[in-house]
Amino acid sequence: MDAVKELSYALDTFYFLISGALVMWMAAGFAMLEAGMVRAKNTAEILIKNISLYAIACIMFLLMGYSIMYGESASGYIPSFGFLIGDDHALKDVLAGTDDAPYYSLLADFFFQVVFVATAMSIVSGAVAERMKLWVFLAFAVVMTGLIYPVQGFWKWGGGFLDQLGFQDFAGSGVVHMCGAAAALAGVLLLGARKGKYGADGSVNAIPGCNMPLATLGTFILWLGWFGFNGGSELKLSDVGEANAVAAVFVNTNMAAAGGVIAAMITARLLFGKTDLTMALNGALAGLVAITAEPLHPSPLLATAIGVIGGIIVVFSIVSLDKIKIDDPVGAISVHGVVAIWGLLAVTLSNPDATLVAQLTGLVTIFVWTFVASLIVWGILKAVIGIRVSEEEEFNGVDVSECGLEAYPEFTGGK
Amino acid sequence: MDAVKELSYALDTFYFLISGALVMWMAAGFAMLEAGMVRAKNTAEILIKNISLYAIACIMFLLMGYSIMYGESASGYIPSFGFLIGDDHALKDVLAGTDDAPYYSLLADFFFQVVFVATAMSIVSGAVAERMKLWVFLAFAVVMTGLIYPVQGFWKWGGGFLDQLGFQDFAGSGVVHMCGAAAALAGVLLLGARKGKYGADGSVNAIPGCNMPLATLGTFILWLGWFGFNGGSELKLSDVGEANAVAAVFVNTNMAAAGGVIAAMITARLLFGKTDLTMALNGALAGLVAITAEPLHPSPLLATAIGVIGGIIVVFSIVSLDKIKIDDPVGAISVHGVVAIWGLLAVTLSNPDATLVAQLTGLVTIFVWTFVASLIVWGILKAVIGIRVSEEEEFNGVDVSECGLEAYPEFTGGK
Amino acid sequence: MDAVKELSYALDTFYFLISGALVMWMAAGFAMLEAGMVRAKNTAEILIKNISLYAIACIMFLLMGYSIMYGESASGYIPSFGFLIGDDHALKDVLAGTDDAPYYSLLADFFFQVVFVATAMSIVSGAVAERMKLWVFLAFAVVMTGLIYPVQGFWKWGGGFLDQLGFQDFAGSGVVHMCGAAAALAGVLLLGARKGKYGADGSVNAIPGCNMPLATLGTFILWLGWFGFNGGSELKLSDVGEANAVAAVFVNTNMAAAGGVIAAMITARLLFGKTDLTMALNGALAGLVAITAEPLHPSPLLATAIGVIGGIIVVFSIVSLDKIKIDDPVGAISVHGVVAIWGLLAVTLSNPDATLVAQLTGLVTIFVWTFVASLIVWGILKAVIGIRVSEEEEFNGVDVSECGLEAYPEFTGGK
Repeated sequence: MDAVKELSYALDTFYFLISGALVMWMAAGFAMLEAGMVRAKNTAEILIKNISLYAIACIMFLLMGYSIMYGESASGYIPSFGFLIGDDHALKDVLAGTDDAPYYSLLADFFFQVVFVATAMSIVSGAVAERMKLWVFLAFAVVMTGLIYPVQGFWKWGGGFLDQLGFQDFAGSGVVHMCGAAAALAGVLLLGARKGKYGADGSVNAIPGCNMPLATLGTFILWLGWFGFNGGSELKLSDVGEANAVAAVFVNTNMAAAGGVIAAMITARLLFGKTDLTMALNGALAGLVAITAEPLHPSPLLATAIGVIGGIIVVFSIVSLDKIKIDDPVGAISVHGVVAIWGLLAVTLSNPDATLVAQLTGLVTIFVWTFVASLIVWGILKAVIGIRVSEEEEFNGVDVSECGLEAYPEFTGGK
Repeated sequence: MDAVKELSYALDTFYFLISGALVMWMAAGFAMLEAGMVRAKNTAEILIKNISLYAIACIMFLLMGYSIMYGESASGYIPSFGFLIGDDHALKDVLAGTDDAPYYSLLADFFFQVVFVATAMSIVSGAVAERMKLWVFLAFAVVMTGLIYPVQGFWKWGGGFLDQLGFQDFAGSGVVHMCGAAAALAGVLLLGARKGKYGADGSVNAIPGCNMPLATLGTFILWLGWFGFNGGSELKLSDVGEANAVAAVFVNTNMAAAGGVIAAMITARLLFGKTDLTMALNGALAGLVAITAEPLHPSPLLATAIGVIGGIIVVFSIVSLDKIKIDDPVGAISVHGVVAIWGLLAVTLSNPDATLVAQLTGLVTIFVWTFVASLIVWGILKAVIGIRVSEEEEFNGVDVSECGLEAYPEFTGGK
Repeated sequence: MDAVKELSYALDTFYFLISGALVMWMAAGFAMLEAGMVRAKNTAEILIKNISLYAIACIMFLLMGYSIMYGESASGYIPSFGFLIGDDHALKDVLAGTDDAPYYSLLADFFFQVVFVATAMSIVSGAVAERMKLWVFLAFAVVMTGLIYPVQGFWKWGGGFLDQLGFQDFAGSGVVHMCGAAAALAGVLLLGARKGKYGADGSVNAIPGCNMPLATLGTFILWLGWFGFNGGSELKLSDVGEANAVAAVFVNTNMAAAGGVIAAMITARLLFGKTDLTMALNGALAGLVAITAEPLHPSPLLATAIGVIGGIIVVFSIVSLDKIKIDDPVGAISVHGVVAIWGLLAVTLSNPDATLVAQLTGLVTIFVWTFVASLIVWGILKAVIGIRVSEEEEFNGVDVSECGLEAYPEFTGGK
């Protein structure tokens, strides 16, 4: 290989690694966001869920997920499970550090992909917060990151039938965010609402999060990490066209988030009479989810508009889910699920290769697969060992019963 | 274009994007710093101000600021407003994603510049904290980021008369920090001090910030982000000379901050008998502001010394502003304004192209323009709708009245 | 130099600078981790220790440490002190910004190395928390970062006798982590345990940290920063082999941390019956410390296993140190010292150049040198001015007596 090609390989590898590090940082963002949005008594548990789901995602994706998602497969419907009998190329290549990929390190690709799995799983932890058993959640994480996510990921990014169909999903509004939200929804439906959230008279009781600066920090971390999430998904940087593309992705990602903040703030102000901080934060995330399906083709103004609509949708979605008593403490299903639908459809506004039929097929496929598979897993866990903590544990907070410590022992007077 | 030039273009574009992402991260730094330095009852509001000002800055700079600052203009005094009638090249190029710039993506440049605007505006939010109406602040942010900042930015970085005059301001001690501080000062003068800050007998009452770890985290975030802020302002990385220059900027930025910490700690210890944490944090920021005007030419030792003097100045400035009853809850005017004067003058110590006359002209021009323009905007807002919350709202905290929630509902016993 | 070589130089320099920025960010990680693990009344002081030790490390390493560690020396045992009489090349080159290094900027190397010194010193602050005088700690930091660390650093990374002996320590399990832990241990032994930690009847009283989200955030920051710490220590990125190596280091670093989390969680669950969050956090850090001595050669599966063993060791080590009444509020000696032994020995599992004898020689040398030198310095400080605050100050918290403010004035009811 000549020196220029070597250098190009190095630059693209570095770009993957830095992008991956930014996405890894999103794990901290979800942890802070969720820790800020729950009550003090359930904070330590949500923290340990977040750090351990990341660890599980890395290990399961190494052991089997990467092979399923990127292994060779004759069919576009069934991913490769060849690694089970030892003949999988993708996994072997990663473990050996060999590089089939011509222009960047395969291990850098693995690093970039593995942090995406963790993102999908992080979405679940917020929605089921404050009432699910810790080790049940971790058991689900094993199946989700080892099997459920990689199979649908294979359908699009592994070259499966959704990809062949022309389904467009640049960085994963569907593959990552919709997938996480569908798994979360299945869990929430089987789990039920937190005690006291919905009155017998149909009232909805706000359960305020205990630490707004943490929630805000988490949102900023996610915003920053998203530059890696979307920016890295261009998958190449090393010539003028690719560099311009990556720059466009950065700008559009940023503008959509900005649009989401402002739209959600104004919507909340008009609906509630107050400028609700949590809605502004969810607006930022909604803008980011909305643009993730197609951050390359829109102009910056269109990207802003896509974020604005995402920011409006998220407020109405959060209010609506509460009306039908789907209790999601951090709004994860609205942000990552409902808004992802908008994002996937909005691809047709700017990407000439996208069709409404393909986009709908993709989102329905991902949703149905993930929702049904998750429902089965959650259901088995519920039947066998139970997925919800006892009423007493829920009342006292899961920190003491699950983790044996309090997150803020001096601030809450032992409450 | 040959392969080497393409690669060089890609590397410089990546350098801009990563630098920009680091500066974007400074928005989180200001949010955490300010949230830590106010009282609990005003925390949610300062958080929403910080995230929404960033969003507004991005949108306004896209809509008009970038055109004003970098559009073509015959005169060095009046920036281009051609975008109003549709003939502006800069904006069109950005929207179309075309690249006039020969060695990096124009969209990457836009991304890098837009996060600077947000930094300038972030400086304001801290100074007016705990007593200003939320939507008045946002209205000011629209004018500041869309008009006031870009006009003075054009004078220096858009090739205007300050640039032609030889005014040196590498990464914006004047254009960004002094500008933000001048706008903040105008707001504070019209707004008045927080209730209870200054006694009728001339006493100054400390109003302690509620969360020192957040303030410290914010300072570390800003320190990290500053490597992008100053490091990216070299604007090129891709040859030996430029790479060495960027490295020098990183080292000097770091050393100045280190010098600022130690100097402010010792100064505070000598003045107050205690090693005040907030002064150490402000010392770090003072060192960073001081070196921002010229982080390239000084030796690392001189950079340390520039930071040391910045760290001493900031302590005396904070004490002095309190004596003349200018109430700035986070010390923003001292850190970003008073220390910026030192930074702009210190350019003459190492940069042979700098003259005292040009530096003084630059800082006076930026200060007077921003201060007067801001005073007019704040004044109009005050006359028309009032800029200050009611006494009752201030007493109860602006979180409940403006945001409808508390930042720490479980930690303060409802206080 | 031709254009390709210039570009390669620029890319490697950029890689150093970004890696260095990530390591600098670890200073924030230690600050948050330690602030979360101490009680509220000692939080401001641990914060000021963390930011000022970073500043001191930068200044001392510039003034003398870099010269000692990387200056020319005829002997492999005594580092160069030529800078004392003005003939040191390393320091002069840095100050002048010249570049002897053929393929990247010397100033970028200085930046990368200086943040490592701060990491070593950060390890100390946690272990001596809640009872040591602030300025005594800072005085120790001056000697540690200016002399103790650079001397043993010279023995390995400056080309001294440990390097000549074949001692392998890729990114510093020994040079950085063991060194920090040895200095911490010396301090803790002279300082004694916190009042109330160990009962007269041999009981061990848990003193819970006040802010678990901060501790978790700190751990995530350290995990992210470690990609720079280990990833940058490959020292070159710009060809296919080096790029693959850096990618392998990223993957292995991440997998070891993941393994550490899971192993520590399971170990704690089995030992205590609860899934202790602080053990999960220490497990992550243990995995990172364990892989730091050799993150390049292991396969990702072996790296995971190395982390798993690190995660198991750290739990038993923390429990054991408490049994022998070595009071380390954050577990720093276990994480960075005991686990580093495992990491240094584990090098022999995958690196064909490593020998057990060389590894043992290296770790014993580093430990003995640092421990004895630190004991002398701590001992002199103890004899001359005393290293421990008064009982009354300890009871009331060091924040008020040392810093003159409280970290959370509104959350603890003045307690």
